[in-house]
Formats: sequence, C-alpha cells, structure tokens
Amino acid sequence: MRYVIVVAYDGTNYCGWQSQKNGMAVQDRLEDALFSAFGKRATIIASGRTDSGVHAAGQVCHFDAELTIPAEKIADALNAKLPPDVCVIKSVEAPEGFHANRSVENKTYRYGMYIARREHPLKSRYAVAVFPCPDIEKMRFCARLFEGEHDFKAYCASGSSVKTTKRRIYSVIVTKGFSLGSTDIFIDVCGEGFLYNMVRTVAGTLYASGLGKISPENIKRSLSEGDRGLVGKTMPAKGLTLESVKYGIELFPAE
Amino acid sequence: MRYVIVVAYDGTNYCGWQSQKNGMAVQDRLEDALFSAFGKRATIIASGRTDSGVHAAGQVCHFDAELTIPAEKIADALNAKLPPDVCVIKSVEAPEGFHANRSVENKTYRYGMYIARREHPLKSRYAVAVFPCPDIEKMRFCARLFEGEHDFKAYCASGSSVKTTKRRIYSVIVTKGFSLGSTDIFIDVCGEGFLYNMVRTVAGTLYASGLGKISPENIKRSLSEGDRGLVGKTMPAKGLTLESVKYGIELFPAE
Repeated sequence: MRYVIVVAYDGTNYCGWQSQKNGMAVQDRLEDALFSAFGKRATIIASGRTDSGVHAAGQVCHFDAELTIPAEKIADALNAKLPPDVCVIKSVEAPEGFHANRSVENKTYRYGMYIARREHPLKSRYAVAVFPCPDIEKMRFCARLFEGEHDFKAYCASGSSVKTTKRRIYSVIVTKGFSLGSTDIFIDVCGEGFLYNMVRTVAGTLYASGLGKISPENIKRSLSEGDRGLVGKTMPAKGLTLESVKYGIELFPAE
Repeated sequence: MRYVIVVAYDGTNYCGWQSQKNGMAVQDRLEDALFSAFGKRATIIASGRTDSGVHAAGQVCHFDAELTIPAEKIADALNAKLPPDVCVIKSVEAPEGFHANRSVENKTYRYGMYIARREHPLKSRYAVAVFPCPDIEKMRFCARLFEGEHDFKAYCASGSSVKTTKRRIYSVIVTKGFSLGSTDIFIDVCGEGFLYNMVRTVAGTLYASGLGKISPENIKRSLSEGDRGLVGKTMPAKGLTLESVKYGIELFPAE
C-alpha cells in the first residue's frame, strides 16, 4: 500500500530534506519514526528536496508499506515518535499511480523578509532582516517579469547538474504587512518546478529591484541572456518556506 | 546618566526576565552585555518581570551608568555582545525622573493561539495549538467584560503576595487570522498592570467562553466574587508576548 503524508518542519536544525552522510535530515527523522512506530523500514519520497535550513509548511511525501491501521491514523502514530520540529499534518492512502515527486503539478514557496537594521529575536527564525525599505510597487512590477516560462540559468547555483534550466512560473506575488514593530514583506512564488537556490535568488533580485539597484530591463535580460552578473544576491535559507504542493487530484477529502 | 532601552527577546530558553539562582535570565544577559561592552556593572530595571518562557517584543528598561558614547549607539554596542535571542531595539537618554517600572502608564500583552489538533513546527514557538475552534463572536463579547477596573483575584496564581488584586484593564481585543494552513486567534490585553498569570488565565477563560464552556454570567461572577473555580485554565507561557509598554511621555523621537 502507498501512503501520502503532508509534513511541516522547522528546518533550522536540519541539513535539509534529504539524507546526508553528515548531519540530520528531515527524511531520516521520518523514516526513523516510521520504523519506531510500525517496525517497518521504507524510503520516504518527498515532492522535492529542500535545502539545509529551509522550512516547510506543506511538504508532500509518499512511502510504500503494509500497515494495519487506518491511513488517517498514521499521522498521529508518526507524530508520537517525532521531535517537535517535524510534524505530520495529515495522512491518507495514495490514489492509484500517485508519486509525490513525479506527479507534482505546482509548488508554492514563500520568502519572508522584514525591514530592520538588525535581526529581531521573534522574527529571525523564519525571515530575514533587510534594510533599507524597498519600494513595494517596484518589486511588484518586477515580480510579473518572472511569470511564464523562462530560462532561469542566471538564478541557479553554479555546479548543479540539471537537464534544462527552463522553468514555468505561474505567479510571483509580493505582499506587505506589519508585525512586532516592523514592516514584513512576503514573496510567494508558485511554479511547476524550481532550480537549486532559484527562489532565494529571485527574492534577492526583487529586493534589489525595490531599492532601484536592478532595473526591470536587467531582469528581462537576465532571463533572456542568463547572465548571473545581472541578478541579485541569493538570500539566506532561513527565510524560505515550502508552503504547499499541488497535484492534479485532491489528495484529501474536504474538511 | 540614566538610559532607556527597548528590548525584544525570545523567552524560550530563559527562566524569565528576572535573575534567579537557577537558570539564565534575560536580565543577566543584558547586564553581562553591558559589562562586556563598557566594563560597567549596573542593575537593569524592566517595566516588570516576565515569567519563564514568556516573550517580549517591546520590554522597556532603564539603567544608570556613566557612558561616553551617544545614547543612540548603546543599542548597537549591547547587541554586539548579546546572543540572537535577545536584542536591544532602541536606546535613548531617560527623561528627567523616568523609572522603567514606576512610570508605566499601560502595557499590552498578546496571547497567540491557533486551531489545530497538534502543535505545528512553524507556529508552536510563539503560540499554542487549541482544538476545537471557538466561536470568535462569543469570545469578543466576553472580552469586553474584562474592561474597566475589576478584582482579578480569580485570575491570579495562588500564593502571590500583592497588596491588591484590583487592576484596571483598558481593552481586550480578539482578532482572527489565517496562516500556514490554520486559523490564528490573538488576544491583545492592554492594562495598567497585571497579576502573576493573569493574562494567561484571561486567555484560557476567553477560549473556554468561545467553546460555550464558560458563560458571560460566570465571567461577571468571577470578577465580582473572585472564585477561581469559575475561570478557565492558565494557558502555557510560550503563547504570551509583552508587546509594548507606554509611559506618559514619548521616549523616542518620531522616526
């Protein structure tokens, strides 16, 4: 039987999703919990890896195992064996032919920043302090330039081996809020797939565009010419959260 | 010279504001930073204590010392010596006769909860999971009952030695939001002063009122009769944040 689980995690203390020789991975925690709860060893496949320090609110995974409890109860059984920084939100039987990675239709990442000269103790775990304040309307204008299918070669960490650096982005939405005495800025990026460091580099480029340091023309050129010199800094991992993963089918009954 | 500092802290790893025989206090961290930065020992007086595990976004403190740098630069100098979970947001010279505790006009605390059957890794540091979902309008109706001057004897931890258990509350505001897949509920309480555990017990009582487990009549009786049996549970410390402290004067020039 194949099961689907939706997992939330605080990535602060992990070397990322995937098992590594050095460091504890979120995948290890879940596979250990599965063994501890049911005495079964199985590989847990996620929608995709998240990097060291990146968080997830709705990572979707599957695994194959013969379990005797109802699928909906698996979440509780795993949570009983998991530390507080990893939690299974939901569990269900996988639909016919479902694969957590191969069946992905789109994913949404959120990058969080707030306007401050220094890190704030109550905000710095899931967002990054930036200063000065960018022009949000400029950021919004530039955000639209990323929408559609583009070659994101300039937004990809060098040395990654992928077949193509083309990716389709459905939306890039910039929102502004205020909490704990400072302005918050969120960048929500929804796309078919992402390259290594891509969302963090788009976030850095949009922030620079909001300061007037990168023009809309240079963003267009970065997407047509693939020149890394035209784009902004790759922002720190801790500001990034995998918000949700969508498939062609609804995995869970409406609540 | 007397200086005023505004301090934010993540209370997770502290035994509270005040120095204790056992455990690290936020006050210790700040006094150590002051010594480390300037070679001066001084007692740092806060607007009031916060309990073990309680956070602060805007704790206000003063201390007396002879320092040679401009008051506005003290924040940076202290931050250079502080760990990431304690941060001085601002520093300034104290106005004539100012006392961080005795001059308080009002304080605002926020209690945060979210609707979930289990703790969420990205929310559980500063808020508490509650289930089921309460009726917000019932909570709002009951929140108004706390406004004004009342005897909060029923909302005070037993064994605390205070002259009077009467306190004046200016406002209790219940707001609702949605983030990371669940409903958030915030209770903002502004008052002249608070008893030990008072905000956490008001929060627990309002949640129970939203479930229909405590009636408005019983809340009124708890305030007139002081019966601890009429009120809700004291909610956990980690959901509580000291948001701000106001004085009769503006301590900082408008930005």
